[in-house]
Amino acid sequence: MSGQVPDFVKGDFIVNSRDVTVEWGHCDPAGIVFHPRLIEYFDWACALLLQKATGLKKSEMHEVYGFAGFPIVDLQAKFLLPITYGDDVKIFSTVSGIKRSSIGVKHCLTRNGEVAVECTQTRVWCVADPADPKKLKGGAVPDEVVARLRRG
Amino acid sequence: MSGQVPDFVKGDFIVNSRDVTVEWGHCDPAGIVFHPRLIEYFDWACALLLQKATGLKKSEMHEVYGFAGFPIVDLQAKFLLPITYGDDVKIFSTVSGIKRSSIGVKHCLTRNGEVAVECTQTRVWCVADPADPKKLKGGAVPDEVVARLRRG
Amino acid sequence: MSGQVPDFVKGDFIVNSRDVTVEWGHCDPAGIVFHPRLIEYFDWACALLLQKATGLKKSEMHEVYGFAGFPIVDLQAKFLLPITYGDDVKIFSTVSGIKRSSIGVKHCLTRNGEVAVECTQTRVWCVADPADPKKLKGGAVPDEVVARLRRG
Amino acid sequence: MSGQVPDFVKGDFIVNSRDVTVEWGHCDPAGIVFHPRLIEYFDWACALLLQKATGLKKSEMHEVYGFAGFPIVDLQAKFLLPITYGDDVKIFSTVSGIKRSSIGVKHCLTRNGEVAVECTQTRVWCVADPADPKKLKGGAVPDEVVARLRRG
Repeated sequence: MSGQVPDFVKGDFIVNSRDVTVEWGHCDPAGIVFHPRLIEYFDWACALLLQKATGLKKSEMHEVYGFAGFPIVDLQAKFLLPITYGDDVKIFSTVSGIKRSSIGVKHCLTRNGEVAVECTQTRVWCVADPADPKKLKGGAVPDEVVARLRRG
Repeated sequence: MSGQVPDFVKGDFIVNSRDVTVEWGHCDPAGIVFHPRLIEYFDWACALLLQKATGLKKSEMHEVYGFAGFPIVDLQAKFLLPITYGDDVKIFSTVSGIKRSSIGVKHCLTRNGEVAVECTQTRVWCVADPADPKKLKGGAVPDEVVARLRRG
Repeated sequence: MSGQVPDFVKGDFIVNSRDVTVEWGHCDPAGIVFHPRLIEYFDWACALLLQKATGLKKSEMHEVYGFAGFPIVDLQAKFLLPITYGDDVKIFSTVSGIKRSSIGVKHCLTRNGEVAVECTQTRVWCVADPADPKKLKGGAVPDEVVARLRRG
Repeated sequence: MSGQVPDFVKGDFIVNSRDVTVEWGHCDPAGIVFHPRLIEYFDWACALLLQKATGLKKSEMHEVYGFAGFPIVDLQAKFLLPITYGDDVKIFSTVSGIKRSSIGVKHCLTRNGEVAVECTQTRVWCVADPADPKKLKGGAVPDEVVARLRRG
């Protein structure tokens, strides 16, 4: 995979790639992907990156790490090339940085090797609030998760 | 409102009407509403019908009636006229019938008084399962809710 | 694949199967797939069935057959089992019948071999209206497409 | 409206406000709005801002100004407070700056007067490409549109 990995996601952390075929219903009357749908692609790409790192699905991460959610607090995206239905695209995802209780995630969507969209997210590692288990609060990203996100 | 109510939703039960402006992002490359989005319109129209009848929001219905959810088990729709972005449409909703633990709901979407889409849903009135409060089970539709759904 | 094909889609026509992983964002606050999203799954499943039969993408079908769109006129669905995020499901699609200018399509969504959702669609084969190429009108389903949809 | 307008959207340009009730299907299993849906809210809010300024719907802007589309090239958002279904929110939208062929748009979503989400978009004013009318190219934002976006 390394040959195709875009510079935008190269760094010290593992990279996950996800293949997506753009569907008719993802596109707007201009015939291109409606941009909130691209943001949706990146949301799930983030879940898959975490899953690749930990080998766990979200419900399992809850059991192992007390993980309760990963809300986004900051989002940035650049739309460089239009994408249309039937296009087979690749989404590369990696980590851009880790703070105590938040993780920066970067995504790059390519078509035929060309970068079409770049996106960065800042997400908070949440655990259940001991005072009210129905509520979430930020918690320290577990060392083991950090280690697993780092490129071996 | 009575003059405009389509025959499809006339009957023994109250009728709620909801105004929707069709957005750019609701439409597909053919320039018409992507039909799953119409199904989404009707889902919320159902919530609004219940809210009109009971005067309660969903969280309040939980407190008053133990209501825990309203999953759909059957859906039917007829698409008669295409709808496009910028169209101002009206969605009329009513009840088609009530059984012990399920309610039939009918919706009719009109544009300029013309019927464009008809939809029927069968939904189950759910309460928390006493054996496992995280699970739902069908419960009897409360008499008071039935009475409130009936046309005074 | 034959061993797993649900009865609902068995018949005289080819069957396409599509694997879908249910995403977090496809689910509602009850933790199950929001049903309009299932209807969206089936919309694209229909496109893939046609693509499997003809070996052509939509834009190519336009060139070869003058195909201009496939609007839905009737939709029916039964929701038998709830589906949640992380679930790996399979969608089987086939044809239930072909009239001059419309095709009945049936879909069956399974999880671990169990049928969770059944859906039927009636869709109209459209070509550009010679009087106004921006408009669509129903056209005869080409014999070659009918033949390719039939089980060899 | 001025009393409620958040600082984020105060400036030299007109402000549009849009009321949205958050629907059940807009929310994810955590019970809060799935963030791509918020991005969708802002997309249509941008259309409404332009409509307020010009008094024209998109199809009319095509006739009057040759306007053919308004693709986004840059998006930024900050998510400050979670929003849930049933919440009645207000989206304020304004212009942050205008270049020859692009417009910066800012949005602020509030609930009960509290800022919950801030978003900025950079969008390109597009006209049909004379060389190929099916394609779009950036064009100068018409002076009249600029004037109408400015606060009287």
